[in-house]
Amino acid sequence: MEYPSVAIQKAVEAFKSLPGIGNKTAVRLVLHLIKQNEGKLQEFEGAVSALRTEIKYCTTCHNLSDNDTCSVCANPRREHSRICVVQDVRDVLAIESTSQYTGVYHVLGGVISPMDGVGPDDLHIASLVNRVKNGSVDEVIFALSATMEGDTTIFYTSKQLKETQVKISTIAKGIAVGGELEYIDEITLGRSLLARVPFEI
Amino acid sequence: MEYPSVAIQKAVEAFKSLPGIGNKTAVRLVLHLIKQNEGKLQEFEGAVSALRTEIKYCTTCHNLSDNDTCSVCANPRREHSRICVVQDVRDVLAIESTSQYTGVYHVLGGVISPMDGVGPDDLHIASLVNRVKNGSVDEVIFALSATMEGDTTIFYTSKQLKETQVKISTIAKGIAVGGELEYIDEITLGRSLLARVPFEI
Repeated sequence: MEYPSVAIQKAVEAFKSLPGIGNKTAVRLVLHLIKQNEGKLQEFEGAVSALRTEIKYCTTCHNLSDNDTCSVCANPRREHSRICVVQDVRDVLAIESTSQYTGVYHVLGGVISPMDGVGPDDLHIASLVNRVKNGSVDEVIFALSATMEGDTTIFYTSKQLKETQVKISTIAKGIAVGGELEYIDEITLGRSLLARVPFEI
Repeated sequence: MEYPSVAIQKAVEAFKSLPGIGNKTAVRLVLHLIKQNEGKLQEFEGAVSALRTEIKYCTTCHNLSDNDTCSVCANPRREHSRICVVQDVRDVLAIESTSQYTGVYHVLGGVISPMDGVGPDDLHIASLVNRVKNGSVDEVIFALSATMEGDTTIFYTSKQLKETQVKISTIAKGIAVGGELEYIDEITLGRSLLARVPFEI
């Protein structure tokens, strides 16, 4: 498509490079931005530019942060003896939104995946082992995706942690809350039968 | 949701203000941007900032442009005697992508809609009448949405153009190409029956 302006073409290309944004959506977003008043557009620009200049990573847990220590690690009301190991910052946000977790995190930055060329040294595994060795950590909870790569990462990392004798757990696998039995795949259903829990009245 | 960083929170809010982008998508886009390298992020920033600083409107047809005259109006190979009246810049892009139109455009900037407080004076109708009066224009083609507001705008504008005795037309209404008859609403189907065209072998 030929655009009436080079600036628009560049902006459409920029938005198109974002995940899940196609050509039509990109044009829609760009034309929406153009229609905004000067201040609103400047605000958007500033927010994007802050991503480049202001974002740091927490030196303890590798979470995104404004400072050298993220708001979770800096919070004295969190249980610092419990570490939840996640793949990604997005997972931290997901777990935080449940309001069910009061410990701290450790962001690996990915999972071991030889197919994608990601080995243990590309992840923040060594710093996790150091944290457990040097701090008074009681429990490490793995909250990784239930995939081959996630399981491999749990296996490798827990082996590294073995000598520290820290308690290691993984989040429960089973049928989703609200899930209808007939639509659940047979592997999940089989495992949730094997991992049945006593029901108390 | 509580974000680990103020910069991220602001960026998520900024993306959420765009049409069709919800909270989850905004988080996804922001985290994608953060993962990009410095240059890529700077490029995105520059493209957004160019929208504010470099975009102008064509003084002739009110299309978006890099200069005072847009690429369509400045093109000597377009038929300047034929003006297609559209609501929005998006419609210019849509018509340009058909490659079926060789004339020039006039962007009204909306349609007459008393419900939304848009009257004829809020649109570029007067400048269209001036263009027709002062230039050698043969035909004005209305390519507006087939809504009450679109029809009102066509009616009002063509009345203003009446004394110039320019030829006025609207784009054809009927069933869409590839449209299955049983799914077409009865008004469209009824009108396309009334507006039937002779079929030549």
